Amino acid sequence: MIIGYAQTATRFGEKEFNFNQAAELLKDVKADLIVLPELFATGYTFVSREEAAGLAEELDGPTLLFLKGLAQKTGGVLTGGFVEKEGTKIYNSQALVSERGVIGVYRKLHLFNREKLWFTPGNLPLKAYRVKGVKIGMMICFDWIFPETARTLALLGADVIAHGTNLVLPYCQKAMVTRCLENRVFAVTANRIGREKRGGDDFTFTGASQITAFNGEVLSSAPENRVFIDTVEIEVEKAGDKRINEFNDLLADRRKKYYFNT
Amino acid sequence: MIIGYAQTATRFGEKEFNFNQAAELLKDVKADLIVLPELFATGYTFVSREEAAGLAEELDGPTLLFLKGLAQKTGGVLTGGFVEKEGTKIYNSQALVSERGVIGVYRKLHLFNREKLWFTPGNLPLKAYRVKGVKIGMMICFDWIFPETARTLALLGADVIAHGTNLVLPYCQKAMVTRCLENRVFAVTANRIGREKRGGDDFTFTGASQITAFNGEVLSSAPENRVFIDTVEIEVEKAGDKRINEFNDLLADRRKKYYFNT
Repeated sequence: MIIGYAQTATRFGEKEFNFNQAAELLKDVKADLIVLPELFATGYTFVSREEAAGLAEELDGPTLLFLKGLAQKTGGVLTGGFVEKEGTKIYNSQALVSERGVIGVYRKLHLFNREKLWFTPGNLPLKAYRVKGVKIGMMICFDWIFPETARTLALLGADVIAHGTNLVLPYCQKAMVTRCLENRVFAVTANRIGREKRGGDDFTFTGASQITAFNGEVLSSAPENRVFIDTVEIEVEKAGDKRINEFNDLLADRRKKYYFNT
Repeated sequence: MIIGYAQTATRFGEKEFNFNQAAELLKDVKADLIVLPELFATGYTFVSREEAAGLAEELDGPTLLFLKGLAQKTGGVLTGGFVEKEGTKIYNSQALVSERGVIGVYRKLHLFNREKLWFTPGNLPLKAYRVKGVKIGMMICFDWIFPETARTLALLGADVIAHGTNLVLPYCQKAMVTRCLENRVFAVTANRIGREKRGGDDFTFTGASQITAFNGEVLSSAPENRVFIDTVEIEVEKAGDKRINEFNDLLADRRKKYYFNT
């Protein structure tokens, strides 16, 4: 299985530019799964709920239509982040899309900082989608710091976690090594670069997109300050086996009676 | 608050030697909490259940008595690992001990590899013990790879995790950065050095004991191949505040309705 990411330099509010950049980056790429960053078509640093809502789309909007077209070229599925509108609410969402259309949508469960001012917290269960025999789970950016997110995806059988991000802090990439080790899953963390100085915020996005293997090995690590694309071939069946030696299985060994979820 | 560890070079089966080594290492140390490695008095690589049982002790045995004496010198509490006997069962345990005696015992919940052949899996709830206003939780070695262990301790209010280890793999220290970040707790990972070639096993213990702060900063990192002692002063009250910005609190933000514990 070939998995990869496009590390973009998103321009705020310029969907057409951002689509073209992603298409250009991926023009010669064939892959079973490509992950694009969180909110890759809109940018991140909204100044009001109205501004975010003005860039929101439903599932038949231009961003997911663009991903569908891209899937026809890459020959696999893609995930990408978008501002999702449903009724009067907007969500920080990520869609899994094939050449036939939308397979599933994830709404960010853990909103970061001022996202809470515009987005409604995710209200859909975590899910692992079976695509050509491989189970793909989705999470978005700050979800990484809550171990329950990746753990729940692993318990649902996810082999690969598609993790779109707009990271501004330096902790996530190393933590993804832990996430993959503890769950024996693969993860693609697709980050962006560039700066957004809007309203009271001044964010520099930190690149360094990463593909991490089931055993914690970093299979791809992007530069911090330029657009980048990479793919790697993985033995995805490794994620299906949670045994680390003759006696230990990382999911079967859980002592859930002693764990709190309170 | 001053916390620290003693990184020992345990000799298999030689309790008296191991006591003397720990006492010598700690002879000039004053600290509120000192963590000693997993099974620091006995060594790790048993060849049979009978051998492990032959080194087992109850709560009034020589190992916890030694820790009590040590606490009189260091002026605080200590934790140390021991083979605990209760009836016909033995556990891979760790005790929290003050100059007045045993405060609490933790029995390793997640047994590693052939430990399963001799030890009974831990059957006591995780707990955070209040000592002079600070809550101390305990976990042992391989427990690190199950995020639920440290998470449960944090949910119980632990400020500092006393983590005795006998590590033979290179992953734990980096993972402890993630554990401390995601829970905003301090942790003392006390490892040992040396080699044990017994039965079918040949283990080289990897040292690099570590003190990790609530924000992921590594406050102390021991060498990989010699006995070592270190203490650091921490602002333990930082662990009581799970807010990372105006909008996010790492425990209050958990979306537990969406998490699996199955």
